[in-house]
Amino acid sequence: MSGIKRQFMAEGHLIDSGILTRILNLIVEEEANYNVDRFTMGRNNLETSRLELTVECTDNRKIDSITSKLVNLGCYEKIFKEAVLRPAPKDSTVPEDFYSTTNHKTLVFLNGTWHEVKKQRMDGVIVARGSDLICKKLRDVKEGEQVVCTSQSVRLIPSFRDRESGEFGFMVNDFSSERSVDVAVGKIAEEFRRVKKNGGRIIAVAGPVVIHTGGSQALASLIREGYINGLLTGNALAVHDIESVFFGTSLGVDLKTGRPTYEGHRNHIRAINRVFYHGSIKQAIEAGVINSGVMYEVIKKNIPYVLAGSLRDDGPLPETVTDIIEAQEKYQSMIQDASIVIMLSTMLHSIATGNMLPSWVRTICVDINPSVFTKLTDRGSSQTIGIVTDVGLFMRSLADKLSGK
Amino acid sequence: MSGIKRQFMAEGHLIDSGILTRILNLIVEEEANYNVDRFTMGRNNLETSRLELTVECTDNRKIDSITSKLVNLGCYEKIFKEAVLRPAPKDSTVPEDFYSTTNHKTLVFLNGTWHEVKKQRMDGVIVARGSDLICKKLRDVKEGEQVVCTSQSVRLIPSFRDRESGEFGFMVNDFSSERSVDVAVGKIAEEFRRVKKNGGRIIAVAGPVVIHTGGSQALASLIREGYINGLLTGNALAVHDIESVFFGTSLGVDLKTGRPTYEGHRNHIRAINRVFYHGSIKQAIEAGVINSGVMYEVIKKNIPYVLAGSLRDDGPLPETVTDIIEAQEKYQSMIQDASIVIMLSTMLHSIATGNMLPSWVRTICVDINPSVFTKLTDRGSSQTIGIVTDVGLFMRSLADKLSGK
Amino acid sequence: MSGIKRQFMAEGHLIDSGILTRILNLIVEEEANYNVDRFTMGRNNLETSRLELTVECTDNRKIDSITSKLVNLGCYEKIFKEAVLRPAPKDSTVPEDFYSTTNHKTLVFLNGTWHEVKKQRMDGVIVARGSDLICKKLRDVKEGEQVVCTSQSVRLIPSFRDRESGEFGFMVNDFSSERSVDVAVGKIAEEFRRVKKNGGRIIAVAGPVVIHTGGSQALASLIREGYINGLLTGNALAVHDIESVFFGTSLGVDLKTGRPTYEGHRNHIRAINRVFYHGSIKQAIEAGVINSGVMYEVIKKNIPYVLAGSLRDDGPLPETVTDIIEAQEKYQSMIQDASIVIMLSTMLHSIATGNMLPSWVRTICVDINPSVFTKLTDRGSSQTIGIVTDVGLFMRSLADKLSGK
Amino acid sequence: MSGIKRQFMAEGHLIDSGILTRILNLIVEEEANYNVDRFTMGRNNLETSRLELTVECTDNRKIDSITSKLVNLGCYEKIFKEAVLRPAPKDSTVPEDFYSTTNHKTLVFLNGTWHEVKKQRMDGVIVARGSDLICKKLRDVKEGEQVVCTSQSVRLIPSFRDRESGEFGFMVNDFSSERSVDVAVGKIAEEFRRVKKNGGRIIAVAGPVVIHTGGSQALASLIREGYINGLLTGNALAVHDIESVFFGTSLGVDLKTGRPTYEGHRNHIRAINRVFYHGSIKQAIEAGVINSGVMYEVIKKNIPYVLAGSLRDDGPLPETVTDIIEAQEKYQSMIQDASIVIMLSTMLHSIATGNMLPSWVRTICVDINPSVFTKLTDRGSSQTIGIVTDVGLFMRSLADKLSGK
Repeated sequence: MSGIKRQFMAEGHLIDSGILTRILNLIVEEEANYNVDRFTMGRNNLETSRLELTVECTDNRKIDSITSKLVNLGCYEKIFKEAVLRPAPKDSTVPEDFYSTTNHKTLVFLNGTWHEVKKQRMDGVIVARGSDLICKKLRDVKEGEQVVCTSQSVRLIPSFRDRESGEFGFMVNDFSSERSVDVAVGKIAEEFRRVKKNGGRIIAVAGPVVIHTGGSQALASLIREGYINGLLTGNALAVHDIESVFFGTSLGVDLKTGRPTYEGHRNHIRAINRVFYHGSIKQAIEAGVINSGVMYEVIKKNIPYVLAGSLRDDGPLPETVTDIIEAQEKYQSMIQDASIVIMLSTMLHSIATGNMLPSWVRTICVDINPSVFTKLTDRGSSQTIGIVTDVGLFMRSLADKLSGK
Repeated sequence: MSGIKRQFMAEGHLIDSGILTRILNLIVEEEANYNVDRFTMGRNNLETSRLELTVECTDNRKIDSITSKLVNLGCYEKIFKEAVLRPAPKDSTVPEDFYSTTNHKTLVFLNGTWHEVKKQRMDGVIVARGSDLICKKLRDVKEGEQVVCTSQSVRLIPSFRDRESGEFGFMVNDFSSERSVDVAVGKIAEEFRRVKKNGGRIIAVAGPVVIHTGGSQALASLIREGYINGLLTGNALAVHDIESVFFGTSLGVDLKTGRPTYEGHRNHIRAINRVFYHGSIKQAIEAGVINSGVMYEVIKKNIPYVLAGSLRDDGPLPETVTDIIEAQEKYQSMIQDASIVIMLSTMLHSIATGNMLPSWVRTICVDINPSVFTKLTDRGSSQTIGIVTDVGLFMRSLADKLSGK
Repeated sequence: MSGIKRQFMAEGHLIDSGILTRILNLIVEEEANYNVDRFTMGRNNLETSRLELTVECTDNRKIDSITSKLVNLGCYEKIFKEAVLRPAPKDSTVPEDFYSTTNHKTLVFLNGTWHEVKKQRMDGVIVARGSDLICKKLRDVKEGEQVVCTSQSVRLIPSFRDRESGEFGFMVNDFSSERSVDVAVGKIAEEFRRVKKNGGRIIAVAGPVVIHTGGSQALASLIREGYINGLLTGNALAVHDIESVFFGTSLGVDLKTGRPTYEGHRNHIRAINRVFYHGSIKQAIEAGVINSGVMYEVIKKNIPYVLAGSLRDDGPLPETVTDIIEAQEKYQSMIQDASIVIMLSTMLHSIATGNMLPSWVRTICVDINPSVFTKLTDRGSSQTIGIVTDVGLFMRSLADKLSGK
Repeated sequence: MSGIKRQFMAEGHLIDSGILTRILNLIVEEEANYNVDRFTMGRNNLETSRLELTVECTDNRKIDSITSKLVNLGCYEKIFKEAVLRPAPKDSTVPEDFYSTTNHKTLVFLNGTWHEVKKQRMDGVIVARGSDLICKKLRDVKEGEQVVCTSQSVRLIPSFRDRESGEFGFMVNDFSSERSVDVAVGKIAEEFRRVKKNGGRIIAVAGPVVIHTGGSQALASLIREGYINGLLTGNALAVHDIESVFFGTSLGVDLKTGRPTYEGHRNHIRAINRVFYHGSIKQAIEAGVINSGVMYEVIKKNIPYVLAGSLRDDGPLPETVTDIIEAQEKYQSMIQDASIVIMLSTMLHSIATGNMLPSWVRTICVDINPSVFTKLTDRGSSQTIGIVTDVGLFMRSLADKLSGK
């Protein structure tokens, strides 16, 4: 095959991360050829490896396609060129050959040097302002902004799994319901303590199942004790949390006896009505009618929270952000600089958050349904640790461990 | 026990519907006593039964609580009184003892006669305007409107399962993945033909899994052939539908070969970008760039549709309704007078729709995950027929049967 | 329709049990007519109801078919006739019109009086020896034995749900993973204490997931404290239990750290080898090499147990009953007179046990997978209470509650 | 660290298979050090790579442990030594340091040369007879037989994924229910045709759900047309297959109408009774009473089959092998030299078969429940392709494609 050739470089923990494997397999699957021009393997587990590689294939379109995929694995072209910038033709519209971002740390070669992209998230575009590079959602791009196009001179730094993070390491990619959850709870408790001590931020993403399964007090106590620095949820968790404060029920089921209760079917609507009467959750707290629970703790402690609206909502409560674009903005600003994101039994909010999270943020997904974890990793949130278990028992157990019982 | 007594009546297919069983069990569970004053059982399956019953218990609060539950089963007090109306104290706020609606047909005794409530849905309140009674969502209530309070003089007409609907009867409550789906497909095809012939309306509620699993052409052909009279979905179905038209992929996977494709990870963002460029889906169709698929068919045939926004959305596409309150309104107006609602692999939109549907609308839920069906019936959409299967194969099979293959 | 008529009687809690509903619906579904000749409804919740009914249909085959189904709902023909007995033509073979049993209490009218059937189980046949009636599996029938044929003069006594069993009542048919399990654990602990105090028998049916999820010590402590009177399981639970005693692992995963261990993949085979060396589990205990765990406790306390063989077995351990017919016999004799059967994360053993259990034995099924519960009830074990949760956390929580923590 | 050192070699597609990654990660996880003494990377996708590596750690036990794991990844010690052979101390008992097998191709260095092990399966032991090496189950070892101990001089040849097997490649590790199954069916049909033409053997492992979901005729037609060379199943499939021939029902549900039928609950017992009457399935076929269905086709075409007994069995039918040790032997001899094993909706038989299969046999697992696939790969059958779908629709679709519709 006497075709078109292009040279690539890659560095880092190429072997232990499995990236080298994926690089070579990719080229073969694309029916191209490769030649390893140079390869220096780290002689031990502290040294990194370094690869130089020539890819050869039959046509230009193909080589561009392969380049684009290699870039997403951390390769970069040996000969640095200036990134291709083109203006956005209209608001919310970019040139067809725009570079679409991943959740990994990304550099762009501009004005003769590599610049790190800010506000990294997946499925975004990169806009250059001078040598400032910012990751934006497509809809936020303004006409005329300079957009990074093609993957030329884009360079990813994949998250090599942190060897020092021994505590968490054991759980990666483990989503089995046939493991002892008690051990995982212990590790997470240790990690929460460590993060709190070091001033890190733990963000909880939670669904109403936390309340239904009796995890409400446990989550409230974690908030009270300073383990939660932000709460991302929806209207439903707030409704059922407040229902449980007013009536001792969640979806009408008595949380103490497990029995459906008198008029329980309407308790959540009654709870909404009472909040509407006071004007908002905050005002109901100030009026003293809500005096415990998850929403009480976050508002009392001034922990930031977002109640995102959903098509399924009853009410919704006044604090709910009903426009989903606005809700997305608020979610995204909450997860900036998060140390840990813990996702508790909610497909919708977990995947929405996963889309926004850079790959270097530790992510734990607790759900009785393994498909939430599977979807997160399929969509690229491969840093996620999955724990398949009963979220109510999990939260009680975590709260016990954190309070030293 | 010499306590407080109250007399109730109930009529209809009390026994074959199982309602009599639930009435008596309810009273016992509430630790009250009952005396059957009169009971006339239908002597055959055409005659209805008639019950007169005295309930006795120890205190007033209790008897009110039991009354409220009996009313929801179709009982009404022997001595008709005027319904209790009270003004809403504020916008979106009703008196604490308001009557909270079910999805069953409901009558209210007002000005000496029974009136049927309009726009019936679950978890609403009933507002009286003269002798007009309208079911409203709590948030739509205006200060000063007359709200039906307590369940006094409210009467429900439960949906006795239609004995004539033989075709569908067999499937009720059947959500097993261990049944032959081929038979169910045949019944549904017959029913679709019958409804179309009679000028009924079939509404499809669909998620993006329909596209991923290769059901796109089948759904498009049902629309083209006039079997679908409305489409309730979200941004994601439209995105992946248009992605498949532009690139032949869904979530980047080639629908013909099943292989992930070149830059497939960004195809859905590229599709959004191209629609943004044209201004809207409709404009992209007019420009000729979208020329097949589900969205093409609904827009070409002027079938009403709603793309509801969700926190997980990329884009979203211009036609997406991003405010969830507005999206709920549009969903609700779409399902008015529906004959059949068929739900295709979407938890979010199915449950949202279930909340709005009166119990007399036939509802079919097709999902590989049995929990969608379980949640629908748990929340009161007990008329739902569940079919646990692969939605892509199901849609192909349905389209084949409807086109006479 | 001037057809064939037959008269039936039924007594008991016909309405609150829902049986009357099912009787009438059945007749209509079979396209026959009925006339209610007399109906006396219990005037309160202590009195039973009494029904006399004439069924009319077009042909003899039909009326026999309907009779057979009505009998299974507790109806009996108004005019008692002697049961039809016919000899078995060969070993393990009965006449084609044999009566096939349910798991409900059953009476047969023989020699002018009603006799209760012994050893009731589902899918069996009834053999008469004089006026002794015994339920047998088909394969155990001997040539020439007198077999009850047709459902003529067979009468079932359905298990009317025990109104006094308030503690358990709340859970029936509740298999949601969205409920608080903590409440259910409390109720079960109370019930276990009560049964133990009254000298009842609690049988555990357990799978290896109990060990994998860290529930081993909890189950062992329940046995030690006298709460378990019999253990029905398979080779796998014993293998992993002994693996955990020898190596601290289950399926090679360290139960303390959650990490896969050195040569963990072969630990279960090493455990089997060591037991083979000593000759049996019992001998290994006597030799002192096994000194804790589930198998240690049952053997030390002389609790009867059965390890049933399965096609998936490694080993199997010497105590395993490898012939499944023999294993079934041992299972069946274990569950005689059981007060409670608790099923812990095992589809195979739970369904096998369900087939053998009379409907009046309380049955609890704990599994993270709701389909085990669904299958049990579909196959007729409708008395089963389902709890969808993490079995490891459940067992720890139950053991804590029983030991007063 | 001045510790104990050992040198290893490895060759093959070390990088594209991901094995090099796993080798280095393993050493680090074991807290040992490594030094890459030499590494030659294949310069293109046809050349293999070659690794020489020194591992260093603190104690002898550790180095043995690491060696054992490295061997399972395909490494072997640079300095060949004779394998360690020790006699079995008793029947079914081997020395504690025995080598426990994987499902990969295995060589042992004996009498100065490498010998391939015969009858490879996982969790076995290797017995030497002269220079003949045979993989045996532990229970089959006889006292005094020479057993390979430790992993010294054992060498595995991992199955490098076949680059030529393009047809299947796309599906590996794909178990999503959100993919188009239609594409996969097409690939499998092509592969079946190819294997049939080349004289390969296709073994079906099937559960009764194939019958319940209406896949019976499709499976029967595959057998009739020569695509199935062996059938591994249990009593239940045969019972429901024969029930469907006699009564048109499966578990009492009419396969044509989907309705439960008259006395359907007892149809499977009636079917068993009728087979018992004739003596066996074969005799019932000869008597002409069974004239279609899956069992009819396998017996008529003299296709070998095994009905393995299970604790859940009713009957069981005379052809059922009730001793599970005997059933395992028969299963194992069936899968010798299989080209493809296709597993159809059965957890029990699939995992049992997976345990016996060498890793180079293509394995397809079709189930609506993703956990069967997950368990197979967790237990080491990593060659399995998972397809999450409705097995009834899948089988009809496969039969249509194979018969050219």
